[in-house]
Parts: sequence; structure tokens; C-alpha cells
Amino acid sequence: MSNSSASDARHHVVIVGGGFGGLYAAKALGQTDAKITLIDKRNFHLFQPLLYQVATGTVSPADISSPLRLVLSNQANTQVLLDEVTDIHPDSQTVSLKDGELHYDSLIVATGVSHHYFGNDHWQPYAPGLKTVEDALDIRRRIFVAFEAAEKESDPAKRQAWLTFVIIGGGPTGVELAGAIAEIANSALQKDFRSIDTTQTQIILVEGLDRVLPPYPTDLSAKAKDALVRLGVTVETESLVTQVEADQVEVRQGEGSKTIPTRTVLWAAGVKASSLGTVLHERAGAQLDRAGRVMVEPDLSIANHPNIFVIGDLAHFAHQGDRPLPGIAPVAMQQGQYMAKLLKGRLAGQANPPAFSYFDLGKLAVIGQNSAVVDLGFMKLSGFVAWLIWVFAHIYYLIEFDNKLIVMIQWGWNYFTRGRGARLITGESVLPLIRDASKSTKGLAEKVG
Amino acid sequence: MSNSSASDARHHVVIVGGGFGGLYAAKALGQTDAKITLIDKRNFHLFQPLLYQVATGTVSPADISSPLRLVLSNQANTQVLLDEVTDIHPDSQTVSLKDGELHYDSLIVATGVSHHYFGNDHWQPYAPGLKTVEDALDIRRRIFVAFEAAEKESDPAKRQAWLTFVIIGGGPTGVELAGAIAEIANSALQKDFRSIDTTQTQIILVEGLDRVLPPYPTDLSAKAKDALVRLGVTVETESLVTQVEADQVEVRQGEGSKTIPTRTVLWAAGVKASSLGTVLHERAGAQLDRAGRVMVEPDLSIANHPNIFVIGDLAHFAHQGDRPLPGIAPVAMQQGQYMAKLLKGRLAGQANPPAFSYFDLGKLAVIGQNSAVVDLGFMKLSGFVAWLIWVFAHIYYLIEFDNKLIVMIQWGWNYFTRGRGARLITGESVLPLIRDASKSTKGLAEKVG
Repeated sequence: MSNSSASDARHHVVIVGGGFGGLYAAKALGQTDAKITLIDKRNFHLFQPLLYQVATGTVSPADISSPLRLVLSNQANTQVLLDEVTDIHPDSQTVSLKDGELHYDSLIVATGVSHHYFGNDHWQPYAPGLKTVEDALDIRRRIFVAFEAAEKESDPAKRQAWLTFVIIGGGPTGVELAGAIAEIANSALQKDFRSIDTTQTQIILVEGLDRVLPPYPTDLSAKAKDALVRLGVTVETESLVTQVEADQVEVRQGEGSKTIPTRTVLWAAGVKASSLGTVLHERAGAQLDRAGRVMVEPDLSIANHPNIFVIGDLAHFAHQGDRPLPGIAPVAMQQGQYMAKLLKGRLAGQANPPAFSYFDLGKLAVIGQNSAVVDLGFMKLSGFVAWLIWVFAHIYYLIEFDNKLIVMIQWGWNYFTRGRGARLITGESVLPLIRDASKSTKGLAEKVG
Repeated sequence: MSNSSASDARHHVVIVGGGFGGLYAAKALGQTDAKITLIDKRNFHLFQPLLYQVATGTVSPADISSPLRLVLSNQANTQVLLDEVTDIHPDSQTVSLKDGELHYDSLIVATGVSHHYFGNDHWQPYAPGLKTVEDALDIRRRIFVAFEAAEKESDPAKRQAWLTFVIIGGGPTGVELAGAIAEIANSALQKDFRSIDTTQTQIILVEGLDRVLPPYPTDLSAKAKDALVRLGVTVETESLVTQVEADQVEVRQGEGSKTIPTRTVLWAAGVKASSLGTVLHERAGAQLDRAGRVMVEPDLSIANHPNIFVIGDLAHFAHQGDRPLPGIAPVAMQQGQYMAKLLKGRLAGQANPPAFSYFDLGKLAVIGQNSAVVDLGFMKLSGFVAWLIWVFAHIYYLIEFDNKLIVMIQWGWNYFTRGRGARLITGESVLPLIRDASKSTKGLAEKVG
């Protein structure tokens, strides 16, 4: 390959994945003597914490995406490679790409996680998850198609199934989706239809544990639930989904179970590690946890391979606190920055820095306009002030790479107009989906999926 | 259908198509006693004059789309129907929909035009046109994939084919695309790649007639050409494309012909009428022109059917000037407004208003940042002042329905940063396209198309 010159004597850091972990590592290594190669199969970094806003029609994909080449264009030592790593060879210190191979001196694997249906992969067509831009556009399409189909459906029971949205998983993503769909139904679309009353929409949030936002303090979980209920969301805790079909879901609650007729199910329940975790297990003997995440050493390397590191959602870091660190953006960012510090030290011939330690700035979840919950550790907040903190925290990180002030302006605009400007239904023709609403129950999942 | 009650005695105006013609007619009929049904197969109005900015990564689809239901939500007499008209029955005054049928008292057909390859439909996969959001995203994808593929290609000739863009058709769309791609290559991407120099990009604009912007005064055509050349565009006039393949186009110039190796060809050359023109010909005896457009009477009705009207790009209006009115947004808007005036008069028992007459506010075309040509009739302008007029004219119409001030802010931002924030490559995996760059010449068109 033209970009891996044998005559280049610089230390070569290969970073796999341009998410928060990989990109922060690449940025922090920009002004070093090392040669950096960032590999991603997409040409952009995605600000995943706001992906639910694409899925619910508030902002466009480009508003929360930063071209990797643009972010790194001023780093002369950094090359971006649009490619995918398929294998890792610790002995020869090379990675296999779909298009060739590449030698590394240090390797940082930061490829994250994808959805996990707990052995029920056949649910996927009926219950899409939210990890990629394409996922978000699929969900956006399903949400707005459902209202169109309800408008055309004359059978009351079938119409109500189109107006019923089930969100599986009561973590931050599930809570955010449920709140946003409630606002769409009760506010944005309220005056837009002639045959249906969108305020009759049912939004059901299903969570297996006894409260929403399980990692948060119990009082914040309660406040989040109250805010959801005020928006009209039905919160079903201690409820396990046992079946997902095109037109219904089955939920077990204690001894009993019930069937919810619905045409729109969204998955916010489980994640599994990306396949490079398994590669590291097979090639380098890395230990994996039950979700396939890679157990890392205190310095984020894997055992017996001091020059291979795993950071971000793919890493299982068990050296701080009682539980592994959560798979959230701030952990990945700090791990990326730690990597740069460690590698700079090594290049300067210094000893490793102290073990990685996550500095918890707080937990945030947003429930809707004007409402969020925030746990800053020393202080817990909910309601409008929490929402303002959420807004500014996200803007702060969003504009870091790419100055996406547009999003803030869009939010400000939406705040006063309660609009959902980005609710266009794109992709293939939507008519077969809503036309056969009353005839076929399989149409939506097959055609949209 | 639930929305066509037999007991409703109001005059029912059915409008087919939510483009400029149909939507302006619907808006202008909002405060009347008539019942209005607007039918479109999409749930949004598209501001087509700015679609090239989606195709070249400046704005997102939602930025130039307005949900039809939102635009019409305050008109209690207006129903939006997400459906497609497949047939028209003048005797029974009904239209067939994909989902049922609908009775009309007055019918306005405004379904516009699509691409026309002059009998060479097999060129379509290699030379997409620009009419829909999906077209624009396809073109955006092709443009940015081409630079990624060039970055990976080691064969100089093949690399140059990826860095060669051929735009067929020198009308406003072709000129706008050529100018925008030149700015991408020379400015936005200039520092982003390590193996290629994007300023080596070749952009070739092919026009069959002897100048670009043929409907404009000759001196403005010359100024537009000068501006394109300054941006680095090669303008080939009196040149006819005779063959389009996956990796080259053939161009005939006078007696000779030449082959241009290229991996990206864009079609901005021809349009054909939508299929409802043919339906009106068969069912109502309407005359069609060579492009399939419907010849209309001075009041925009079709001969012998005073309650069936055709407006916008689908109409051939030959009662003003030497040539038919051009297929541009201002004509469609004014025809929509004329329709409302005519129908209001009829409902009030008045005689028809005078024949439709287009009031020409001027012609505009933009060549790049800071550069446009404007023909206001009494005065011709080019350069920066013309560009400012272009910006404000477009903003004026863009914000009319939906207050899309975001676009203006985005433009302002881009103006100072020269950024192309919306250049994410989405859709299916892009890797097969660029990976096999040197092996397969058919990959791109098949996979992207």
C-alpha cells in the first residue's frame, strides 16, 4: 500500500475506529513524532448521544456527523484510511484490512458495540436498534410512516396498533426515545392530521429491572419516570419482552403476561461487542466478558501484549469501583486521551503513567423539552435546570471538532416553535407500506428493514 | 374512503402534486368554502432549486424540505393524502389512487417532470439525474466516494479517472453542480487527503449548444463561462455525449469525437413529463408536446375539460411570447396562485379571469460562492452582487412555508469557513466500491445506483 512506506522509521500508531475513543486518541497524538493511521469504515465521526434526535426528526444526520478527514486535516502526521480491519496478527504486528494489510508498532482497537437481541436475532426486522445513521433514518421513517398509516386505516383496532409505540429498554436511549415520541404525538403533529387524533398515541417503555435508568440513583429514576408519565408515556418496569412480531409484542410481568398490538417497536435494550473482540481473543488470548467485551489491564492494554490496547465501549475496565466502567462517551474520550499520554511517554523513553482512572463528570439523561435528570455526584438535579445542563454539555462536546453551532440554533428554534423540521420520509416508496396497512401485517418490517 | 364523504356538498378541489404549483394553489385556496385535497406520494415539499446543494454536501435534505402537513396544518378545509394518482376519469370526475379513488369537482394536475435520457435509458445507472432527495444523496455519495477511491488508487491513470467529473448539460443545474464540485476539490477537501492532490481534479461541463445557460442573454452566458473557467471547470460547448459507460464517456464535437475516462458522470440534460400527461392524453384527449408536456388553454385548463387544469413543469403554456414558458419554480408558483383566483371566481359565480400571464421576475444562476448571473430584464448582473441577489431570492422563498432560517445560517457559516459539513457518505457499505477500484469498472454504478 502506498501509505505504509517501509523507509518510514517513525513509530506507527494504528487506531481502529473513529468514535469517541479512537478520535480523541488520534487528536491527542497529532503533535507527536509518531505516525498515526486512523481506520474507519465510515468517512465521519458520529456524535452518537444525539442520534435519537435524528431518529425523531429534530436534526439531520450531517448535523451530528463530523468528517474524519476534516477533523484531522491539520495533523500532518495523521492519515485517515477508509477501510475495515478483519484480522489482527500480534506476531507480525500487522492488521488485515479488506484492502491489504498494515504494520503497526502500537495498536488501539476502539470499534465499539452493536445491538444484541439476547439470542433473538429474528426480532431485529421488527425492532431496530439505534447505533448508526442508517438505523436512525430507518426509525425516523417508521415513526412517521406509522402516523400516515393510522390516518388511512379505518379499522379502529388496527389504527390504534399504528398509534402504539413500544420501546424496549429503559436506559438513557429508551427514555430519550420515549420522551421524544411523546412530544411528536402530543405537540409537533397535533394539528397535522384530519382523521386521527395523534394525542391518542400510546407510548410504552418496557424495562426488565424495577426502575428506568437503572445505573442512576433511585430518586433520579423516580423523577425520570414521573417526567415520562407527565408526557403520556406508560412505563412498564419488571417486564420482560418474550416475543416480538410484526404487529404485536408479548411482555411477561411476574406470573402473568400480556400482548400489546403495535406496529412500531424500537430496541434500546442490549449491546454486544464488535467482532474484533473475538479476534483479539483468538489471536492474542485476550479475555472477554459475557457480552464479548475485552478485559483490559489497568493501562488499557491486553494481557501479555503491551502494545495492543482496547478502549471505549469495547473495553471492559474492571480496575475502578465495583462494576466495570459504563459504555458511555466520556469514558471513551478519557481513555483516548490516556492512550496519547501513555504513548507519548513511551516514545520519550519514560515509564508508563499511573493506571487509567475515569473521572466521572456526572450522568445525564434527557426526557423531553425542559426536562432531564442529572447526577453530578455531589448533587442531583431534575427538571429545567437539568435540561439546560444537558443542552450545554452536549453542545460543548458537539462543537469541539466541527463547530456545529447549527444544532444549537436548530434546538433554539425548535424550542420556541415545537417543530420537527426533519421529519421527511425518505428511501423507497412508502406507499406499499401504508396502503396495505389493513391487509398485510408483515409489510412494514420487510419493506423498511 | 373515510375522507370522501358523499354528504359533503362543498366544491372539491383535488390537487395532484405538492411541488411549487400544487402547494401554492393549495395555500391560496385555504380560506375558501371549497374542500381541498392535496395528494402527493411524498410527505414533504422539496425546494428543488437548492437540491444541488444537498448533492454537493452543503445542506441536508431536511433543510430544504417542508412537511406538507405542517405547511397546511392551519387550513381546516385542506386534507393531505399520502398517495399516488394512477388514472383520471373525466366522465365520472374521479381519480384512481393506489389506495382507492376520489371524486373531484375541479382537478389540478401538477406532477412535474423527471429525467430524460433521449432514448438512452441504459445510461441512467452511470449518469444519475437530480430530481429527488434520493438522487441528491446518491450524487453526494458518488462525489465523495470518488475522492476516497482516488486516495486508494495507485495506478495514475485510474486515479485520474476517479478525479474526473463529467456533467452533461449546461443549463442552470449543470452550471451549479460544476461550480460546486470545483469548490469542493479546490477548497473544501484541499487539505484532507495525503496521497492525492484534490486540486488536480478535472471537472468537464458538456453542453450541446454553443454556450452555457442557453435561455439567458449571450453576454451572461459568456460571464458564466468565465466564472466556471476561473474555478477550474473545462466547458465543452457544441459537444454531444454519444456514449456513457461505467468508466468513460464519449463526446462528439463536430466531425471528431473523444473519449473521457471518468468514474463520475452527472446528468443535467433532459426532462420528460410525468406519466399523468399521457393519462390526460388518453382519457381527456389532451394534446402533448414532444417531451410529453400537456398543452394548456390560456386559463391553464385542457381543451374541452374546463374543470381539469395542468400547471407547473408538466404544463406547456404557449400563449405568451415566442416560446413556451420555462419549467421553473416561479412559473409554477404563479400558475398555482392563478388557479386559486380562477376557482374562487367560479365559486362566486363570476366569469373567468383574464388569461394566465407570467410575470418574469428575472433569471438567476449561481456558479459558486461569490458568483452568479442575474438577468432582471431591465438589467443584467454578474459576480458578487448577482450572488447576493441569488442568495436573498432563494432565502425569501425558502422561508415562506417553514422558516428555514437554518439554511441561511449554514450558508453564512460555510461562506466564512469554506466547509462542506454535510459530506457524510451514507447508505450501504462503501468499501466494496472503493476497494475494487482498480479491479472492477462496474462496481460503482451497480452498487450505488
